[in-house]
Amino acid sequence: MEHRTFPEFSTNYPLLLTTFMKRPVRYYPDQIGVVYRNHVSGAYQRLTWRVWYQRVCRLGHALQGRLKIKPGQPGRLGDRVGTMAYNTHRHLELYYAVPCIGATLHPINIRLSEEHIVYTIKHAQDTVIFVDDMVLPLLENIYERIQDTVQVFVYMSDKPGLPQTRLPNLIEYEELIAAEPGQFDWPYLDEDTTATLCYTTGTTGQPKGATFTHRQLYLMTLHSMARQSIVNTPGFVAVERLGENAVPMLNTPLFHIHGWGAPFTTVFSAQKIVLPGTFTVRGFCELVEREKVTSVGIVPTIAALLLEFTDFDKYDLSSLVNVGVGGGALPLGLKTKLEKALPHFRAGSGYGMTETAPASIGAFVKKHMVQWPKEAIDEVMVKTGLPSLGLEVEVVDEQGVPVPWNNQTVGEIVIRGPWVTKEYYKAPERTAEVWYDGWFHTGDLAKVDEEGFVVIADRLKDVIRSGAEMVPTVLLENLIAMADFVLEAAVVGVPDPVWGEVPMAVVSLRPGSAATPEDVVDFLAEHGVQTGRITKWMLPRLVALTREIPKTSVGKYDKKAIRENLPQFLAIAKDMSRQPAWPAPT
Amino acid sequence: MEHRTFPEFSTNYPLLLTTFMKRPVRYYPDQIGVVYRNHVSGAYQRLTWRVWYQRVCRLGHALQGRLKIKPGQPGRLGDRVGTMAYNTHRHLELYYAVPCIGATLHPINIRLSEEHIVYTIKHAQDTVIFVDDMVLPLLENIYERIQDTVQVFVYMSDKPGLPQTRLPNLIEYEELIAAEPGQFDWPYLDEDTTATLCYTTGTTGQPKGATFTHRQLYLMTLHSMARQSIVNTPGFVAVERLGENAVPMLNTPLFHIHGWGAPFTTVFSAQKIVLPGTFTVRGFCELVEREKVTSVGIVPTIAALLLEFTDFDKYDLSSLVNVGVGGGALPLGLKTKLEKALPHFRAGSGYGMTETAPASIGAFVKKHMVQWPKEAIDEVMVKTGLPSLGLEVEVVDEQGVPVPWNNQTVGEIVIRGPWVTKEYYKAPERTAEVWYDGWFHTGDLAKVDEEGFVVIADRLKDVIRSGAEMVPTVLLENLIAMADFVLEAAVVGVPDPVWGEVPMAVVSLRPGSAATPEDVVDFLAEHGVQTGRITKWMLPRLVALTREIPKTSVGKYDKKAIRENLPQFLAIAKDMSRQPAWPAPT
Repeated sequence: MEHRTFPEFSTNYPLLLTTFMKRPVRYYPDQIGVVYRNHVSGAYQRLTWRVWYQRVCRLGHALQGRLKIKPGQPGRLGDRVGTMAYNTHRHLELYYAVPCIGATLHPINIRLSEEHIVYTIKHAQDTVIFVDDMVLPLLENIYERIQDTVQVFVYMSDKPGLPQTRLPNLIEYEELIAAEPGQFDWPYLDEDTTATLCYTTGTTGQPKGATFTHRQLYLMTLHSMARQSIVNTPGFVAVERLGENAVPMLNTPLFHIHGWGAPFTTVFSAQKIVLPGTFTVRGFCELVEREKVTSVGIVPTIAALLLEFTDFDKYDLSSLVNVGVGGGALPLGLKTKLEKALPHFRAGSGYGMTETAPASIGAFVKKHMVQWPKEAIDEVMVKTGLPSLGLEVEVVDEQGVPVPWNNQTVGEIVIRGPWVTKEYYKAPERTAEVWYDGWFHTGDLAKVDEEGFVVIADRLKDVIRSGAEMVPTVLLENLIAMADFVLEAAVVGVPDPVWGEVPMAVVSLRPGSAATPEDVVDFLAEHGVQTGRITKWMLPRLVALTREIPKTSVGKYDKKAIRENLPQFLAIAKDMSRQPAWPAPT
Repeated sequence: MEHRTFPEFSTNYPLLLTTFMKRPVRYYPDQIGVVYRNHVSGAYQRLTWRVWYQRVCRLGHALQGRLKIKPGQPGRLGDRVGTMAYNTHRHLELYYAVPCIGATLHPINIRLSEEHIVYTIKHAQDTVIFVDDMVLPLLENIYERIQDTVQVFVYMSDKPGLPQTRLPNLIEYEELIAAEPGQFDWPYLDEDTTATLCYTTGTTGQPKGATFTHRQLYLMTLHSMARQSIVNTPGFVAVERLGENAVPMLNTPLFHIHGWGAPFTTVFSAQKIVLPGTFTVRGFCELVEREKVTSVGIVPTIAALLLEFTDFDKYDLSSLVNVGVGGGALPLGLKTKLEKALPHFRAGSGYGMTETAPASIGAFVKKHMVQWPKEAIDEVMVKTGLPSLGLEVEVVDEQGVPVPWNNQTVGEIVIRGPWVTKEYYKAPERTAEVWYDGWFHTGDLAKVDEEGFVVIADRLKDVIRSGAEMVPTVLLENLIAMADFVLEAAVVGVPDPVWGEVPMAVVSLRPGSAATPEDVVDFLAEHGVQTGRITKWMLPRLVALTREIPKTSVGKYDKKAIRENLPQFLAIAKDMSRQPAWPAPT
């Protein structure tokens, strides 16, 4: 007699996002699980896990039934469901309902140019788009260009009813799900089914669509949580280790690289999730106070915005004990200022990219550093960090050989591991540009210090080559940002007949500051050159003081925009080569 | 032009034990990683991660080369490598070298009967056996019966040289690896390659061989670590959350269900691992003091041994802050006594079995319980617990329907998930006895309380059926163990013409106690019946005071042995049915 086994429930039990969302509703059905407050409309919802999960189930039925969304299988994507939405409970519902029926979620980056947004929608061939009321005007602007691709639109708003619009086939989200059953028999999909399609910001050419399977996102989440379990937390153990009682606020848009993974870790952890719609400084402070938020992830420019805000002392932000900073290097000066303004605040740096889903490298205090003085720990926490558990990360020279751990030799970061994207959707040539020799090539430069910390040096394309040397622009930016009078600083290369390129610092000052370009160079001379962190020839030849530094859609310094508008910056830049601090040419 | 992708380094990056062992040597090469002290021989070794890893590499080469061990592939096991060994650095080396070359590790349970040991070796068809010097006499005893199966023996000892023995083909471990290279280019195996073969203790019939793939052990480890990251730690946050700086001592033998997973989590976590060879109470205390051990996992009977030890106050055991108790229910009385003896000690219960690798169910303080008073938390910590993250655990009735969460209805625990064994090796009929309807059937009974906690009731075969009711023997045992005068207690059913069975309590008293059977029943009446934890009819009809309770090879109460020697226990048992506390028949 033949006896069957059940590999699908044992050795090959599928790793699915479905598993994450089933946990909180099982063990905490009547506790508040998802909080959403819209700073603009004033809407404020506090959903129990049961209610939120029922909404996911209803959405799943509506996707399958009324919207006829078809599932995929390994190697063939399911129907693509686009979202043009902020951080709301509805967006989080889409994050589960779409992949868990086997379809592919395409979180559209609404901060791209219209041309790029249209490109990603047409390239992804989105069948349906879920759109927030605030984003509707943008969608109306591009409608003619995508009308052959998208068949249906779903309107998401805190106010009932449909708006006046020329968009056809517009369904109201709440009406769509209202009559559907609150239970769903989620399928045991193949774990290699594609769950998400995330486009890069396209700073060079058109955006590229990175694909991720359920297995990949599941494993990224598990490894991130496993890493949490071995983090060494010097000094502030008692406050940082909150377990299920952490209250994360998701500031990073869900259309940016899975919101840095937060929609997965927080749901599986059954933590109370706070969704702020869009970011405003005041809204941020209000929500932290009301919901006792403990943890946030932000980009450096948002950190700078917080520092500028003069009403800090009107809010009780003492619950906030843990912040991750990513999407750009974390200047030590910025970290120090933040921790001065918010005594319980502890920040660490991180690195990742769309193609890595994004968990890659993060701040880590190694076991023997735990007893170090705070100043030394601080320096460790802003070194970009150690690779994620389970990921292979190397910094290699042009022959693909790992550079020595000497904190000097610059190489390119290459990565491979369970959650690195396998390929750009429908773009084998562009995939081949980054995936070769068995490694994904990030295009980012770094050094490795004696402890194995990967220290980001620069984007390959942002590198300044001055003479035979490469100027470490990120290091310069971090040093300048340490000055009390500085808000932000970006450093780019400017063509020079002698040196090839020379560095120009574009600097915005803190409100009320009367600092001069000379002050910037003097500060660098004292805190950079004299301390040995940089050499004299790295000092910026040009310093341009400006009210605002151009940024990309994800809040990074847009160096491409600076280079494209170079005359405008050169016009206000001061040539520092005659200053006393400036070195004689050697 | 065809562009290839690299699924083997992205979407299908294999989940291998290899990944675990590479981490500590990369980031902590010169720190002490593996400590081994043999309480008997006095050998004491403190190996850096670099040295330990080099030994694993050397062993890998020796296995492949000199011993000609062949790798397997999905569906076909590699050569089986048996170990008859205690918890030493060498055994930990075998735990990695054997699976990471693609072969299958068979940790032989040397506490089984000789007949069963012979059976497992012949059934597994072990090609080679690695044997500790202390276990050599046992191996010599059974040599004739396994000589046709095993070709080579490797002798592991802290003293150089080979012993006088009649065993042929005996190689010395240290000599075997000495000349091999200290680096190894570990293969990227298929993650579905079988890594281990672990036999059950065979309380019913011959032992059964549960198989586990790399993927399964990897995922068990990841989920266990992820769970750590969300544990809520009321009151004792600062001490329990030690991250990489935890110092685990591995008391559970590595031949018991992967030493409860410790060889995997501790290596990946780069924690300092303390291996005590075999367990002795004095050796335990000495090692805790010398190595500042923070964490141990033990069975209840070892906990009872610790309590009996009168020299506790001669040692500084203050580093010990975290203990897991498994392999049997954790009586609240035992927990309370331990915490009284060791103020920093915090214990929680757990449940698992060979077939579940074993992580299944463990103590967990739910988020809203964190502020509860210690007494209430204590009760939570000895409820068997919540399922592991990522595992489906249900308690079902005879129709396979989950029982209500009412803390009353008893059902059978069924499990499925990524690390449940798919099958017993070469035993499809026995596999079919436990794997059906898509679930692995544990044969263990439990209730589920209102919070979703699975509370172990009994082994199916240990259940006492008295009248139409089932007597919860584990609950009775736990209640009896709360009495100050009690060391251990087991409850079994005795045939009875009226009731079918009646419960008999077999009790050992603490040294020096003069308690009587009446005291046992009075204690149960006061702390069980009057508090509503049990009903009157559950009181044991018979109480037998004995010096020692029979135990299985893994330290559990051996109820089968009690039943087989029933006359002996009945001879010393007192019939309590005439006592005042005894209820009138109803």
